[in-house]
Amino acid sequence: MNSTQTSLVPEGPGSVNWTDRFAARARIGGGDLTAILSLVGSADTITFSGGFPAPETFPVAAMETLVARLVGHDAAVAFQYTPTEGLPSSRVAVADLVESTQGLRPDPADVLVTSGGIEALQLLCGVFVDAGDAVAVEAPTYLGALMAFRRSAAHVVGISMDGGGLDVDELERHLRGGGPVPKLLYVIPDHQNPTGLSLTLERRRALVELCSRYGILVVEDVAYRELGFDAEPLPSLWSLAPHTVLQIGTFSKILFPGVRLGWAIGPRAVVGAMAAGKQNADQCAGALGQRIMSEFVAGGHFPAHLAAARRLYAGRAAAMLSALGRSMPPAATWTRPAGGFFVWLTVPAGIDTTLLAGRAQGEGVAFVPGAPFYVDGRGRNQIRLAFSGVPEDRIDEGVRRLGRLVTDSTRMEA
Amino acid sequence: MNSTQTSLVPEGPGSVNWTDRFAARARIGGGDLTAILSLVGSADTITFSGGFPAPETFPVAAMETLVARLVGHDAAVAFQYTPTEGLPSSRVAVADLVESTQGLRPDPADVLVTSGGIEALQLLCGVFVDAGDAVAVEAPTYLGALMAFRRSAAHVVGISMDGGGLDVDELERHLRGGGPVPKLLYVIPDHQNPTGLSLTLERRRALVELCSRYGILVVEDVAYRELGFDAEPLPSLWSLAPHTVLQIGTFSKILFPGVRLGWAIGPRAVVGAMAAGKQNADQCAGALGQRIMSEFVAGGHFPAHLAAARRLYAGRAAAMLSALGRSMPPAATWTRPAGGFFVWLTVPAGIDTTLLAGRAQGEGVAFVPGAPFYVDGRGRNQIRLAFSGVPEDRIDEGVRRLGRLVTDSTRMEA
Repeated sequence: MNSTQTSLVPEGPGSVNWTDRFAARARIGGGDLTAILSLVGSADTITFSGGFPAPETFPVAAMETLVARLVGHDAAVAFQYTPTEGLPSSRVAVADLVESTQGLRPDPADVLVTSGGIEALQLLCGVFVDAGDAVAVEAPTYLGALMAFRRSAAHVVGISMDGGGLDVDELERHLRGGGPVPKLLYVIPDHQNPTGLSLTLERRRALVELCSRYGILVVEDVAYRELGFDAEPLPSLWSLAPHTVLQIGTFSKILFPGVRLGWAIGPRAVVGAMAAGKQNADQCAGALGQRIMSEFVAGGHFPAHLAAARRLYAGRAAAMLSALGRSMPPAATWTRPAGGFFVWLTVPAGIDTTLLAGRAQGEGVAFVPGAPFYVDGRGRNQIRLAFSGVPEDRIDEGVRRLGRLVTDSTRMEA
Repeated sequence: MNSTQTSLVPEGPGSVNWTDRFAARARIGGGDLTAILSLVGSADTITFSGGFPAPETFPVAAMETLVARLVGHDAAVAFQYTPTEGLPSSRVAVADLVESTQGLRPDPADVLVTSGGIEALQLLCGVFVDAGDAVAVEAPTYLGALMAFRRSAAHVVGISMDGGGLDVDELERHLRGGGPVPKLLYVIPDHQNPTGLSLTLERRRALVELCSRYGILVVEDVAYRELGFDAEPLPSLWSLAPHTVLQIGTFSKILFPGVRLGWAIGPRAVVGAMAAGKQNADQCAGALGQRIMSEFVAGGHFPAHLAAARRLYAGRAAAMLSALGRSMPPAATWTRPAGGFFVWLTVPAGIDTTLLAGRAQGEGVAFVPGAPFYVDGRGRNQIRLAFSGVPEDRIDEGVRRLGRLVTDSTRMEA
């Protein structure tokens, strides 16, 4: 406090320790992760940590024209509040985009425009999760989802994954086991965070059928769905079972994160209750971002924009896979993603990757260790590598540094 | 659902009723207000309902230059994620603005950049409010705050106001009464929503002293503070007692709402815990809005911009006060705000303004009835009139329509 006047009530020995008065939920950790993410290496550090989109994909040229038009001719809308559910034009734009990429058109009345994907998850927790309610997730899964569920005091159950994505048979065995039926199943079917794996078509059908039978709301996060490198994406879960699935999407990966924008689509009662919760959150997603997005969709820019982004990320993924082949010891294995931002690396069992992350700091390379992506202590010898934000010519050097660390650690274990 | 393919799991008699599975908090109402605000009159309706800023105040000319520069030369920052606490430049800009208007400079490390004022309130509830915790508010107070506290299952206590703002003596009597000490006291000291009243200097000093003594965190909402028509504002509560006050500000009224941007300043432990909660909300306020704000502050635009906004709102307030004098029956009374967006109208006790709001729809005028601004059934014969969004030449006609309704209702009562 650089005080330029004297406070009326000085801070002193009798001051309140506000943390003593915090609510129970504010005492829930998250500290490990924050500590890991705040590890800052030297300026030379090559960071595979954050799942950030590449700035090279931001459609600056289109934005220069589009944003100038909005500011000059649409300020009364683009700078004002919007309805909590989103501007009508934004809800239609999301419906248009979803129809064009998923083959099924949501009624715009079933679309909630959110301030990104993680906000949608928080709103959903607000609608469904009382303390102690069971929620099922992929093991491993997105850290932000785990944090949201934990902060809602949910009982989180991790269902294993293999090369075909979530193990639906394991989920079914879990449900037959007679414990509490989860209210929600959170899943990222395409190019998953953190593994880069995708759910097979057969399992997609089995999953929505199973959850429908048990009355479990499937929460489908499609953050990376449109960033497949080659093949057409598989059907979205929502398109297979729109009455059983709440789909959460974000523009952070497929456009840019700087305007906080996403969507939720699903059963109208759920979307409506999420909108009611959003009145107590930020009231509405920012109008400027909504108008940017809907004009970008209406202008027909998305197909070419996505194609360019896919090419860029495909090149970075290929560079990383190739570098891993050159630099990792034989005992290491890794996933081969067909899209998205991530490779999931498994090193020999004796290596604790949380400790390795600390040592990596000194070697000029950063990553996120595997354990925080699980709820049950798994993943201690795993690592998430995000290739999305690193130029190809730096990926090789970064993986080389990491490979040296892993090789050294493997020798120490042996 | 305009289905263009057949759903795998059709909706049928066996479908889940998702509302049966909602969490307790999602069953808490808010319905009354939503119903009131969704009353849509004819195209000719003059609406005094929403506390919207006047689009005429949006600094479009400055934005044209500034936004073009950001998009063209700063896209890698302006379109990317930011740290949860906000960009360093945004936190400095808030500190600069607060220092220039409140005479005390916060350490930028104690500034959290939020997605508007209501988000800050929700984050604060997340940090402090367990179910059943007591929270004190002005009676009447901001609807969004009441909704946030209720959704957190707080026990909300309303402390009366008079022409000098919150009755601090009543608060002290309440505290001496021996009930549970509120964790938070939420107050809007300047040009309050909904009354337009301000807290006197003497009471400001008494209030922070009292709350400091009892260990109550004062939550100071300064949404309208910079929109006083004439005189210099009184000292902010935060500037009087920065260790006892969490100040919440918003750029929605003093710049524009279209980028969802605000701030929280206060004890570092509180601000830090709010930031931890924000990781589960929208992760960060949008970078584009943050950059717009900080460039607008750094460019020195705010003083002239605020002066123009004050003139516009002063003109509208004068038009409304003059129209009320001409159109209201003698038994009606109203506040005479020295700033902000609102006049608070009290009509004869027998008139139920919630019913009147329905009838007003047919007469082409809209307002918010008083009862929802209280927690205890007061305000049934009161009305909030927002003059902020209505051009002067329409205010007279709107108040004339309302005056006719009130006069008719008074006669029916008599």
